[in-house]
Amino acid sequence: MVEVPVISVVGWSNSGKTTFLEKLILELKKRGYRVGTIKHHHGRIELDQPGKDSYRHAQAGADAVIISSPDKFGLVRKTEQEWSLDQLCELLPDMDIIISEGYKKGDKPKIEVYRSGYSKEPAAKQEQLIAVVSDTELDHNNVPLFNWNDVAGTADLIEKKYLR
Amino acid sequence: MVEVPVISVVGWSNSGKTTFLEKLILELKKRGYRVGTIKHHHGRIELDQPGKDSYRHAQAGADAVIISSPDKFGLVRKTEQEWSLDQLCELLPDMDIIISEGYKKGDKPKIEVYRSGYSKEPAAKQEQLIAVVSDTELDHNNVPLFNWNDVAGTADLIEKKYLR
Repeated sequence: MVEVPVISVVGWSNSGKTTFLEKLILELKKRGYRVGTIKHHHGRIELDQPGKDSYRHAQAGADAVIISSPDKFGLVRKTEQEWSLDQLCELLPDMDIIISEGYKKGDKPKIEVYRSGYSKEPAAKQEQLIAVVSDTELDHNNVPLFNWNDVAGTADLIEKKYLR
Repeated sequence: MVEVPVISVVGWSNSGKTTFLEKLILELKKRGYRVGTIKHHHGRIELDQPGKDSYRHAQAGADAVIISSPDKFGLVRKTEQEWSLDQLCELLPDMDIIISEGYKKGDKPKIEVYRSGYSKEPAAKQEQLIAVVSDTELDHNNVPLFNWNDVAGTADLIEKKYLR
């Protein structure tokens, strides 16, 4: 098991998870951390455009295809079943923190994003919540509550709990 | 170091490396092997389309982004310098064989693809060559020579040398 801390940003559809996560990534990068993210994806996963070389490798049946450039690489691989969040985290052993968007049924500490009119009952189990981020006041059962715009406050909490 | 055998398919531009590799992948898959491929890439490496969630994670500065589906996952990560072929191979410890397209300056055993009118002097060092695949007769210095269409023969050689 990888030792990198993993947290999950969860919430109902259109609650603003991605927008919040973008701001959180920016804030953590500003503080000098190496950040990896993980998300479910329901469409096609392709690294390359149809007709390009590595696309052709994949089409020919390669189980895994890597393309590498001076400042980035990409890997796509087939799996017999969906890899767990823990398995995927093993691919990122040298990050300071890994944040999943979603994986609300997983066992990781969670930040719930709440948005008036879009959120219903809590998406995450109470005991897994480390923070709630909301556009409004909420009954939050003593879980730390941050305003949507207080990304610095949320990052402070993450730093204190996982990065020091 | 990963124990998976690694070979490099090399040759000059337009010699037909990708076309040959497609046929070789198909043949090795038909024989039941797990095949990974690796290639340099000179353009952008993106898993997702602009505006999509994981694209936004990457744009926000994430060092690594993974998207996962039931039968595939994709990973893109930034690197401070280009990863070596050996480093990239570490990502594929459970393949039966890894084939790079290119990496002609690397130290792996090589198959040279030769095509009349496109190929010049050998792209690979003589002592690294395990086979030459050509559309014409060649002075091949005792390196096994296969006709372009004899993918089965090339696969036999690879099996005998690396997969048994």
